[in-house]
Amino acid sequence: MIVAMQEVATEEQIQKVIERLVHLGFEVHRSTGARQTVLGAVGARNEFDIRDIEVLEGVSEAHRVSSPYKLVARSFRPEGTVVKFSNGVSIGGQEVVIMAGPCSVESHEQIFEVAEMVSKAGARFLRGGAFKPRSSPYSFQGMGEEALKLMRDAADKFKLLVISEVMEISQIPLMIPYVDVLQVGARNMQNFNLLRELNYDVMLCERGIRTFETYTRNTMDISAIPIVKKLSHLPMVADPSHGTGRRDKVPPMGRAAIAAGTDALLVEVHNCPDKALSDGAQSLYPEQFTKLMAELRIIAPAVGRTLA
Amino acid sequence: MIVAMQEVATEEQIQKVIERLVHLGFEVHRSTGARQTVLGAVGARNEFDIRDIEVLEGVSEAHRVSSPYKLVARSFRPEGTVVKFSNGVSIGGQEVVIMAGPCSVESHEQIFEVAEMVSKAGARFLRGGAFKPRSSPYSFQGMGEEALKLMRDAADKFKLLVISEVMEISQIPLMIPYVDVLQVGARNMQNFNLLRELNYDVMLCERGIRTFETYTRNTMDISAIPIVKKLSHLPMVADPSHGTGRRDKVPPMGRAAIAAGTDALLVEVHNCPDKALSDGAQSLYPEQFTKLMAELRIIAPAVGRTLA
Amino acid sequence: MIVAMQEVATEEQIQKVIERLVHLGFEVHRSTGARQTVLGAVGARNEFDIRDIEVLEGVSEAHRVSSPYKLVARSFRPEGTVVKFSNGVSIGGQEVVIMAGPCSVESHEQIFEVAEMVSKAGARFLRGGAFKPRSSPYSFQGMGEEALKLMRDAADKFKLLVISEVMEISQIPLMIPYVDVLQVGARNMQNFNLLRELNYDVMLCERGIRTFETYTRNTMDISAIPIVKKLSHLPMVADPSHGTGRRDKVPPMGRAAIAAGTDALLVEVHNCPDKALSDGAQSLYPEQFTKLMAELRIIAPAVGRTLA
Amino acid sequence: MIVAMQEVATEEQIQKVIERLVHLGFEVHRSTGARQTVLGAVGARNEFDIRDIEVLEGVSEAHRVSSPYKLVARSFRPEGTVVKFSNGVSIGGQEVVIMAGPCSVESHEQIFEVAEMVSKAGARFLRGGAFKPRSSPYSFQGMGEEALKLMRDAADKFKLLVISEVMEISQIPLMIPYVDVLQVGARNMQNFNLLRELNYDVMLCERGIRTFETYTRNTMDISAIPIVKKLSHLPMVADPSHGTGRRDKVPPMGRAAIAAGTDALLVEVHNCPDKALSDGAQSLYPEQFTKLMAELRIIAPAVGRTLA
Repeated sequence: MIVAMQEVATEEQIQKVIERLVHLGFEVHRSTGARQTVLGAVGARNEFDIRDIEVLEGVSEAHRVSSPYKLVARSFRPEGTVVKFSNGVSIGGQEVVIMAGPCSVESHEQIFEVAEMVSKAGARFLRGGAFKPRSSPYSFQGMGEEALKLMRDAADKFKLLVISEVMEISQIPLMIPYVDVLQVGARNMQNFNLLRELNYDVMLCERGIRTFETYTRNTMDISAIPIVKKLSHLPMVADPSHGTGRRDKVPPMGRAAIAAGTDALLVEVHNCPDKALSDGAQSLYPEQFTKLMAELRIIAPAVGRTLA
Repeated sequence: MIVAMQEVATEEQIQKVIERLVHLGFEVHRSTGARQTVLGAVGARNEFDIRDIEVLEGVSEAHRVSSPYKLVARSFRPEGTVVKFSNGVSIGGQEVVIMAGPCSVESHEQIFEVAEMVSKAGARFLRGGAFKPRSSPYSFQGMGEEALKLMRDAADKFKLLVISEVMEISQIPLMIPYVDVLQVGARNMQNFNLLRELNYDVMLCERGIRTFETYTRNTMDISAIPIVKKLSHLPMVADPSHGTGRRDKVPPMGRAAIAAGTDALLVEVHNCPDKALSDGAQSLYPEQFTKLMAELRIIAPAVGRTLA
Repeated sequence: MIVAMQEVATEEQIQKVIERLVHLGFEVHRSTGARQTVLGAVGARNEFDIRDIEVLEGVSEAHRVSSPYKLVARSFRPEGTVVKFSNGVSIGGQEVVIMAGPCSVESHEQIFEVAEMVSKAGARFLRGGAFKPRSSPYSFQGMGEEALKLMRDAADKFKLLVISEVMEISQIPLMIPYVDVLQVGARNMQNFNLLRELNYDVMLCERGIRTFETYTRNTMDISAIPIVKKLSHLPMVADPSHGTGRRDKVPPMGRAAIAAGTDALLVEVHNCPDKALSDGAQSLYPEQFTKLMAELRIIAPAVGRTLA
Repeated sequence: MIVAMQEVATEEQIQKVIERLVHLGFEVHRSTGARQTVLGAVGARNEFDIRDIEVLEGVSEAHRVSSPYKLVARSFRPEGTVVKFSNGVSIGGQEVVIMAGPCSVESHEQIFEVAEMVSKAGARFLRGGAFKPRSSPYSFQGMGEEALKLMRDAADKFKLLVISEVMEISQIPLMIPYVDVLQVGARNMQNFNLLRELNYDVMLCERGIRTFETYTRNTMDISAIPIVKKLSHLPMVADPSHGTGRRDKVPPMGRAAIAAGTDALLVEVHNCPDKALSDGAQSLYPEQFTKLMAELRIIAPAVGRTLA
């Protein structure tokens, strides 16, 4: 932590701040300038309330500097993490991996049709939702375990891996037999109890941030891709479907994500988006997906990558 | 400036950062912790590009700490600034000063009627716009100098001072003979050429910030009042009319501003808001203004203030 | 829903949009202007994906207009809801109700000392946290049921009611015997499973929004008070402690909240904030709370309210 | 405009709103649903204050629907605008056009060296600032007309066009003899007086928006590219240098912009960024620019474009 004292701070006030910092377990280094005193507080603790210092008399401002993410920082593993799967596919390596499929698994016919199509186009993963909690009990709630079985079968038939969203701790044992990657949605981003249960092979996903732009539901933050790749060694996935929420923006943002260096792309595709039970507006038509794959294949070499 | 080095930064990288800081004129204090080195850079210069340090190798983050507002900081004049006017009224002292009037001066009848009403209710200032630049040439553009004359006459008749918005440097000499306070609108907040021309008796005004809440045009940030009063010695004005943009929200936010410690309140009132040529939706009806004044008179003693 | 077609939309495109709306169960009213066609779609359904219309060809924009909150709208109960408690205290009526106490219950001595103090000063509710889930297992996790018992005892002794935060469904049966009001924190605002379990006597609480202002942790949105009071019949609570996160901003924002018309105020007070196990920086000292109560007593009549 | 009445609105209130709309010149279409009445107001006027309707009794919400940008809407010129230059280069056509150069023109040597380098790498435009208004009079203020002359000479020698920023109306006649494109900065985005003086061949530029992400100075909004290209027929320029503010993020975001469909790219390059008098942190080194150009050349065909 860095504490800048006010120019008018008295020596007594400065001493009190130093005492408090020492009491909190910090080692304190003092810089006394012509106009202002600055205190550098270094130490091993991450959990403290910076406001306890901010409200002390004579304090101008306090900044937290110790990195709160030691284990995932790029410096911890400069060469980057590569997550490897049983069939030889890996994420974070030379190949850009494409994950595609419908928002929800709706039927045997649907998921097999989509799986065949995305596999032929070069995808490595089949995505699909099994649980769709809605506020209205009359809305489609997802097919549950039946969806997981169908996805696994479809994926196996077309040599794909499976990615699906987990929403509660209780779903983990149910899902493990069927899926290769458990996806955590934005709403669970701070559900620490759930996060703690998941394993060490972590990938990060950019799927849109909140801004003042209202044309799209979210604003897909492409700049997060190179930023996170520099700060962390974890592989990066980009989800232009949720990132934009509109089918016509998915191809340009999918291309941009590859060009910016993402390790994997997660795309919603439906064999018949107009009849999708959820998220139809952001699902690609099969022919759009195939065209997108061809474009991505052109772009990948520009960032030294390949595409299946 | 405070520069936190990465945990993996080499001694060579640290030395390069120190050299660069010294080259920029800073005095550098080094804090070497068990995990991380932190550099405190103190010096008299305010104008430098912090990114020149951020992009150096081994740097984790850089923070600016030297206060960019030395002259207006509370520490420069702990007792606070009181702006005094010729008729004995002052802003920043014991009395909470009310400024009221229409968005635009529209006619002799209108401005005299409003002036009489707000004066009787206890206002000290008559507000009113003379220049209304609109994108369409068919819209009402303000009465210009004629408006200034009318306001001065109305104000003098009812023992009020005059506040009016200046939009360009060229309007200053035109306005000086007629007005007591020149108001600078939000659009000119960073028009440094204009700001440089104005005098030393500065007051700050809270008139709404941009947030994700869309019910009102702006979000009136009442918390800015105690924050700015603590950070700066300048008097604080609150403008709930622009801060909310809706007539029905002006009284509660006007009361809140007084309760939070504002030195003055700027309110739009019109003798006939339904026929106002501009901003009718945020102008109070005369009877609303009178009722608000009665409420403010109850609140003022809670913050140790009086009201005329 | 309102659908504005593009100026160049063809009649065929317009018909397709109408068909889709009818298919979704809407009754459609068409307005054909000189430049543009606008479709008004009215119907009883609240749950539909507006993007399904937005992505249709020829559509310029679509807006949702049907109120998503029929039961809590002011029009449902124009006179406003008053929540009544067993000891005769009620929220939403003539009296502004003050709730005060520490962030966490820490000991018998602490909670009894605070209860006595806030009761004497005029508070009606004792607040205090029993569960403090922290990311680090070494941090204080709250005293659990023991805290609830202590609070109930202290509240009973000093004729107070009890308010405490519930974090999970499983805590509800544990808390019911001890508390009068269950508080839901910001993190659970969209935890529909938890919300569904709670009862019909609902109160809303303003405790800060996210803005670009960084001086305080949150920006306390005082304007939300009159806005929500107009849109809904539910009583409104204001929490300046979480709304600002800094002790020195709590009194001005507490006063402002009363002046803006809140029905109740929730304030963190600690007998010894410097030694508080959590949120010390935003807890008032006992003497600050007593002074604040005196100020609030002056302000309440300005909004036609009383204070105990 | 669309006006949704409250469910409890009386017929009298509805009639008053209709009257007001008619009075404002709108043609009103009424949709009376089972629960709610919705009014569609269509008409030719763009300039009105929507709040005048919002504050009427019985009104629930009002939305503006008429497009405020008729002339630049894609529907006005579905095939898209192509801006052509004297030397045969055009923007908005088949070729993606690269504009590159330093933030400020600093010397004959600097601008000729950069011009030669960017020309060889495939750029079509030389960029460079002539006027650099700074708050401190001791900072570099730009070389003014001398800069314009040097840029013109350097551009002519290496067969480039010139783009430079205009800041005030008075600079226009000074710049016209030297530059091919006048650039308008973010600060002048709403300077209508300046905008009115410029010509009809308009191009739009994405250079970052304000978000809660603080790692970069701005957040480059790549999604704006396909959105604007769909809504408007104007050519789109992307400026990753200002859009990110950091040299290391310029190449990934430049590639992403091309992949997302921009018509032109504006990049800051300096022959010696470490000694640049302004914006050094966001200027590419010559070798970075050359490498970026090679990558862009790979990507362009993915969007059906070419690069010089």
